[in-house]
Amino acid sequence: MNSSIIRYILGGVLKIEGILMFLPCIVAIIYGEREGFCYLFVAVSCIVLGSLMTFRKPRNQVFYLKEGCVATALSWILISLMGCLPFWISKEIPSFTDALFETISGFTTTGASILSDVEALSHSAMFWRSFTHWIGGMGVLVFLLAVIPLSGGSNINLMRAESPGPSVGKLVPKVRYTARILYIIYLGMTLLEIIFLIAGKMPVFDALTITFGTAGTGGFGIKNDSMASYSPYLQWVATIFMILFGVNFNAYYLMLFGKFKKAFSMEEVRYYFIIIFVSVGIICCNILDSAAGIFDALTQASFQVASIMTTTGFSTVDFNLWNGTCKTVLVMLMFIGACAGSTGGGIKVSRVVMLGKTVIKELNSYIHPKSIQKIYFEEKPVEHDVLRSINVYFVTFMVIFTASVWALSFEGRDLITNFTAVSAALNNIGPGLELVGPTSNFGLLSPFSKYVLMFDMLAGRLELFPLLILFHPAIWKDLFTQKVRFR
Amino acid sequence: MNSSIIRYILGGVLKIEGILMFLPCIVAIIYGEREGFCYLFVAVSCIVLGSLMTFRKPRNQVFYLKEGCVATALSWILISLMGCLPFWISKEIPSFTDALFETISGFTTTGASILSDVEALSHSAMFWRSFTHWIGGMGVLVFLLAVIPLSGGSNINLMRAESPGPSVGKLVPKVRYTARILYIIYLGMTLLEIIFLIAGKMPVFDALTITFGTAGTGGFGIKNDSMASYSPYLQWVATIFMILFGVNFNAYYLMLFGKFKKAFSMEEVRYYFIIIFVSVGIICCNILDSAAGIFDALTQASFQVASIMTTTGFSTVDFNLWNGTCKTVLVMLMFIGACAGSTGGGIKVSRVVMLGKTVIKELNSYIHPKSIQKIYFEEKPVEHDVLRSINVYFVTFMVIFTASVWALSFEGRDLITNFTAVSAALNNIGPGLELVGPTSNFGLLSPFSKYVLMFDMLAGRLELFPLLILFHPAIWKDLFTQKVRFR
Repeated sequence: MNSSIIRYILGGVLKIEGILMFLPCIVAIIYGEREGFCYLFVAVSCIVLGSLMTFRKPRNQVFYLKEGCVATALSWILISLMGCLPFWISKEIPSFTDALFETISGFTTTGASILSDVEALSHSAMFWRSFTHWIGGMGVLVFLLAVIPLSGGSNINLMRAESPGPSVGKLVPKVRYTARILYIIYLGMTLLEIIFLIAGKMPVFDALTITFGTAGTGGFGIKNDSMASYSPYLQWVATIFMILFGVNFNAYYLMLFGKFKKAFSMEEVRYYFIIIFVSVGIICCNILDSAAGIFDALTQASFQVASIMTTTGFSTVDFNLWNGTCKTVLVMLMFIGACAGSTGGGIKVSRVVMLGKTVIKELNSYIHPKSIQKIYFEEKPVEHDVLRSINVYFVTFMVIFTASVWALSFEGRDLITNFTAVSAALNNIGPGLELVGPTSNFGLLSPFSKYVLMFDMLAGRLELFPLLILFHPAIWKDLFTQKVRFR
Repeated sequence: MNSSIIRYILGGVLKIEGILMFLPCIVAIIYGEREGFCYLFVAVSCIVLGSLMTFRKPRNQVFYLKEGCVATALSWILISLMGCLPFWISKEIPSFTDALFETISGFTTTGASILSDVEALSHSAMFWRSFTHWIGGMGVLVFLLAVIPLSGGSNINLMRAESPGPSVGKLVPKVRYTARILYIIYLGMTLLEIIFLIAGKMPVFDALTITFGTAGTGGFGIKNDSMASYSPYLQWVATIFMILFGVNFNAYYLMLFGKFKKAFSMEEVRYYFIIIFVSVGIICCNILDSAAGIFDALTQASFQVASIMTTTGFSTVDFNLWNGTCKTVLVMLMFIGACAGSTGGGIKVSRVVMLGKTVIKELNSYIHPKSIQKIYFEEKPVEHDVLRSINVYFVTFMVIFTASVWALSFEGRDLITNFTAVSAALNNIGPGLELVGPTSNFGLLSPFSKYVLMFDMLAGRLELFPLLILFHPAIWKDLFTQKVRFR
């Protein structure tokens, strides 16, 4: 294993985190908060540590899928460990486990919180908390690829490990430019939402943090009631942007270059909107009685469907009080998730569609056993290897899901709490149902359960295998022997 | 499609059902019950109808997987429709939907009941209800193959459609002898259990019905408290026989011919026992406080684990009152199910083990991308096609599962009830949790939900595709055009 390149990448990631951490320092200066010193201290530490790690360039810049996965997994663990320090040092979140949970929940764009009173936090803490969503949304390694020149054509392996979806589409031949284009689109849409929110008379600080939460499909709020107290206009802006950030970014890329027809004919995006419309319709009919008129029902239904489907996790009502039909629809949306190549989590629409097509193909093979059938997606035949990996992904997902529910069950809580807590973590959503519902938080869980959920959040964000690979003994043996040799 | 052979098979199945229905008539004579006439009437009708359908031999006896699936699915629907008539005609179950639900639940060895007072039934009804488990356990088409000479080597397709498990192993080259050997083992073990139960001073009628429920891993009881009122000895006999009927029958075949070493080294059977031991251990520790001593805890835990894992569904305690850990373990066992080639349901141990091996293989392929890895099961490499079909099976299972939970959710009941009702039906277990827990029944559901669960029970028993194929338009077009031509 080429461990020197892994060290180099980790160093680069640390430097980026250090630089980004100056932003909460600025917030602290504006609001005159003493907590700013904690951020400054950690930011400088990150930069010093990162500089030491990148001081010596790796002799060999080639790396394979294995190195890509290990580098990605370790990067995410490292930024979480460093990112939680300000919360802990400033004593705003006194327990280290809780601080780490909150930070992992932030970077993985989950939005599950252990805080019962968000409004008691300092502005710098609220800002950093929401900003982790923005960093995690598009991915810190994609950022690294966009700014640091890594020669060698194999850096697609880094992107493959971090980007969500069954297959990574390079927009342009060069990975570096692909990464840059993605971040430009991301930044542009972020600015657009901020403008729309401020136009609706939202305070600037609120607009920034809410936008970070929407863009990364994270869902940390800055009010205890999430987004319930904002006006319908602001709720609709958030709804629309949540849906937009859940669309495959390839569609925006196509639109950017005027290929509107191609963008609108994307199969995944079509299915994504169909699922949203149907779900909104079902829920709207079911909550008509309790809502104040049809417009209110539509606002509530659209907001919650967009929030859960894109795995953002904001809420405007306590959907734990809705009836069984609505809750079942929401739980199903949790698992489907957003489009591949978006900032959202979940299994992804494209995977779900292809799984459905696999079932139909199997059925056809019973009727015409000798004919060879191909599955088409986005008008192209899907390669056998992609299908296999989707199947295995689904199986692995269920294995991790079951094991986690089982691990949480030792606390003796009800099944719905355990089941939806794991769904919310593994699909990077945020709130679940019952004890971890939209009006509650994850603070009541034991440290053991919290670590299980942290693992789930990272596994969900990195799409399972890049994280699981860290548990393979061969990796550590390899990493260690190589390190010794390179010194 | 060769529809004349399908007609011929359906006729044969009807004749068998008619003959078997004379047994409850005998019970009615012994207990002097007037309901016996209903059974007599339906039995004679079955035989007359069956004889008419088998009067003309099919010109062409060759049939493929497609015909095998259609014949199997239609056979099961037909025997359920005819089998429910006595309940309905005798007005013991006044609603036709309920009578059909009870009968499908019987034949598919589910054991989910709509009756709140089982003890009010006549002896003949109780006998027929339990006897459907025995017929459904090994399969009515396997019975047909054992007794009716069907020439043409393609009758393995019938067995393939009805037998549980990822791949059908013919014990001996001839399908007919395989079917006979299976039924001999089945009958032998059934007799053995009856003897053991009678030795424990159980009344003969109880011993017969309980044994039918155990042998088919069905679970219809003849008392309102299922098996709670029997002595610990009788409970242990039931526990051990439930576990034995959940073992792959290949193991018994091997033992019958003295190949003990080979039988005990079967990987699936080993995993099956490991899962049972671990689950009993976990539950035993968790219920120690509420039980009357360690022996009582062990008795309760073993009984319930055996009952749920083998998908039988008898109960001695209300496990809905157990804590979260125990319930989670039970729900997990529901899905794993018994061994392939047994009378039990669920996903099957062999499939679960192979799915686990697929995940490990995928992980290895990240580390050694170029090496080609084979998955071994039962010391043989698993063919690519078998693995693919297991993956697709799992995906399809989850699709049907999700769709059914969703369909049930329209009644507005709690998620746990819906979730476990579908688990219990699709895995052919019987009781779920909460409103469909061991002390409750399925009678409270709406007719729509009952038909959804009936579909799930049949889909679970026939392992999805043979039933799903009936919904393919090509099948009906094919069936109809052929019928016209053959006339």
